[in-house]
Amino acid sequence: MEIMQVAGSLVCTHRVDGLSHMNLRILRTPKGKLSVAVDPVGAAIGNWVFTASGSAARFACPDPAVQTDLTIGGIIDFWEPDG
Amino acid sequence: MEIMQVAGSLVCTHRVDGLSHMNLRILRTPKGKLSVAVDPVGAAIGNWVFTASGSAARFACPDPAVQTDLTIGGIIDFWEPDG
Amino acid sequence: MEIMQVAGSLVCTHRVDGLSHMNLRILRTPKGKLSVAVDPVGAAIGNWVFTASGSAARFACPDPAVQTDLTIGGIIDFWEPDG
Amino acid sequence: MEIMQVAGSLVCTHRVDGLSHMNLRILRTPKGKLSVAVDPVGAAIGNWVFTASGSAARFACPDPAVQTDLTIGGIIDFWEPDG
Amino acid sequence: MEIMQVAGSLVCTHRVDGLSHMNLRILRTPKGKLSVAVDPVGAAIGNWVFTASGSAARFACPDPAVQTDLTIGGIIDFWEPDG
Repeated sequence: MEIMQVAGSLVCTHRVDGLSHMNLRILRTPKGKLSVAVDPVGAAIGNWVFTASGSAARFACPDPAVQTDLTIGGIIDFWEPDG
Repeated sequence: MEIMQVAGSLVCTHRVDGLSHMNLRILRTPKGKLSVAVDPVGAAIGNWVFTASGSAARFACPDPAVQTDLTIGGIIDFWEPDG
Repeated sequence: MEIMQVAGSLVCTHRVDGLSHMNLRILRTPKGKLSVAVDPVGAAIGNWVFTASGSAARFACPDPAVQTDLTIGGIIDFWEPDG
Repeated sequence: MEIMQVAGSLVCTHRVDGLSHMNLRILRTPKGKLSVAVDPVGAAIGNWVFTASGSAARFACPDPAVQTDLTIGGIIDFWEPDG
Repeated sequence: MEIMQVAGSLVCTHRVDGLSHMNLRILRTPKGKLSVAVDPVGAAIGNWVFTASGSAARFACPDPAVQTDLTIGGIIDFWEPDG
């Protein structure tokens, strides 16, 4: 699982049916790469989170039919990048 | 899920049976890397989209028997690269 | 799915049982990295192809019991690298 | 499977239900990249371990319903980085 | 599937139950990166092999309950790196 920071939300009106109920967040890795994740825990902008990828991302939604390959697994209580 | 831009369509007469009904798009990452994705949402050239990979790509078609590892999950309403 | 070029065949007498009937091809990415893929479509050396990875590779054989993580999905009708 | 070193534990009060009973460790690759893994073997800080990713990570917990994409598979008896 | 060379065996007394019967090998990619793989074919140090990752690695053991994400699929009859 990877450590990333919430950078914003993704506005996406036109999407596949299996993602229709999910909040989508833009996440940034410590190196600056952006990804999109489903957020079942309610993370806020600036929060550091860890993410599950692959089949684990679908189970973590927790509905395994959700068509995601990246899901926030939890909010880290305290994190300092490069620390 | 990754953020990519639609660069074109892929003409591919000779393909495996499980992809016979699907539209294939060429996508470009912000760093310029090209990939091929199944497109169930009807994205146009120049659209910014997000993609699901792995087993989620098959479920997003929405037929899980489709033999893809990358499927467009939605068209992003507004996106500025490097923004 | 990735775009690669067929560089050759792989001679491999001693292999796991689940791959015994399959043709194995050596593929090269545009950046020169080599991989091994199962070929159910009969691609020739020099052909540009696209590949499915992960669980999709097993379904594309089309026997999902085949123990591959990379399978050729189709031959691209026309492709110019860097074009 | 990858070789990594245990760098610490992850404090994460707010997490998805499927990870509630699991110990989470911060791991560091030989190149310094940090990841988060479920630890079913009781590794200590400084131990060198190998990790299973993807669907294997869920099976290694050993409960396949655990929503992890990285799980410690074992503690290496002796390891010298760059050796 | 990737092409790698067998660099050694991994001594690992303390491991998860699902790997208890398997031989573990240390493999090296042509670029020098080390990984750990299950070896069902009996490869020797110095052999060039190809590997299956992801769910295919579990099926190639051939027991899909084995908790591996990388398994040797075969020994290459002849291979010259950079050739």
